[in-house]
Amino acid sequence: MTTISILGTGNMGQAIAAIAAQGGHSVQQLGENDLDTPVTGDIVVLAVPYPAVSNVIAQRGDQLAGKIVVDITNPLNFETFDSLVVPADSSAAAVIAEALPSSRVLKAFNTTFAGTLAAGTVGPLTTTVLIAGDDTDAKSTLAGVLTSGGIDAIDAGALKRARELEAVGFLQLTLAANEKVSWTGGFGVIA
Amino acid sequence: MTTISILGTGNMGQAIAAIAAQGGHSVQQLGENDLDTPVTGDIVVLAVPYPAVSNVIAQRGDQLAGKIVVDITNPLNFETFDSLVVPADSSAAAVIAEALPSSRVLKAFNTTFAGTLAAGTVGPLTTTVLIAGDDTDAKSTLAGVLTSGGIDAIDAGALKRARELEAVGFLQLTLAANEKVSWTGGFGVIA
Repeated sequence: MTTISILGTGNMGQAIAAIAAQGGHSVQQLGENDLDTPVTGDIVVLAVPYPAVSNVIAQRGDQLAGKIVVDITNPLNFETFDSLVVPADSSAAAVIAEALPSSRVLKAFNTTFAGTLAAGTVGPLTTTVLIAGDDTDAKSTLAGVLTSGGIDAIDAGALKRARELEAVGFLQLTLAANEKVSWTGGFGVIA
Repeated sequence: MTTISILGTGNMGQAIAAIAAQGGHSVQQLGENDLDTPVTGDIVVLAVPYPAVSNVIAQRGDQLAGKIVVDITNPLNFETFDSLVVPADSSAAAVIAEALPSSRVLKAFNTTFAGTLAAGTVGPLTTTVLIAGDDTDAKSTLAGVLTSGGIDAIDAGALKRARELEAVGFLQLTLAANEKVSWTGGFGVIA
């Protein structure tokens, strides 16, 4: 059993919590009003929008030392829906990893809509979470939680690949916003 | 009927030629030894690796004026498989469009492996080609060729989105090279 803390109570946080619970893991879910409750999980999922991440780090950065910290964000400019707010050769995950040098930062969940995590499927396929990070054990731990919860996981390489994962997430959001795919569709992975 | 010239006789060029032929379109396929044969298609597919594109433009740039030119490349550093050789905030398609200001440049086919184009399917899904470009009519013309040939096409937005399409292609290539997906698998699109 793995212990998982999820910071954020939105659709993504709820879907990730449900997968972990389905797999028999211990889940702690914390919202904005739970600032006095310390995180207890070995894995901490930052299930908040990118603009809120810096606040979370300011509030809880010390508690995240030594933990597996999962960045799920798509750092879009949501006014224009036409660019990212992180440097083009970098990623939100890289920015977060720099701010949390004592944590084992992973990028995951940003290429799967909440609806496909909640359903466990995207069209005829099992939902697949792509995980990038520099710590192989951390990736393996997160992947184990996901597969025990009934969805698939793929090691997508080093944390540097978060640039590409965020491009996938960005593209997928624009496709849904333009009604080219539905919010329960998007990219699936065929192994 | 649309007329299509395909420059390149590799797996991708052959698969694209077969789709167009299947749709009842007129296909001209030209290899490196056909330099004396001018391109005749309204659509010209540059089905060559990115490092060969500049030669094609030098040889045939004048012939491409006014035509729909389709860039299919994934501009990877194939020595390291760890980065792209175009600027991180740009794309091969943008570089090509700058070199061909009188052409209507589209990005397409770089997110689909040759095997999935040849089969028309990726896993249980119909293969979907993502098309980016600034000329809506040009995108519609190419999409018509593809759907008549039995595969799906989605307008993925302006040519600026080629940055994201190339990130998808890059990521997919690294997943296949690392045996996380097969060369007949990869990303599928669920509308």
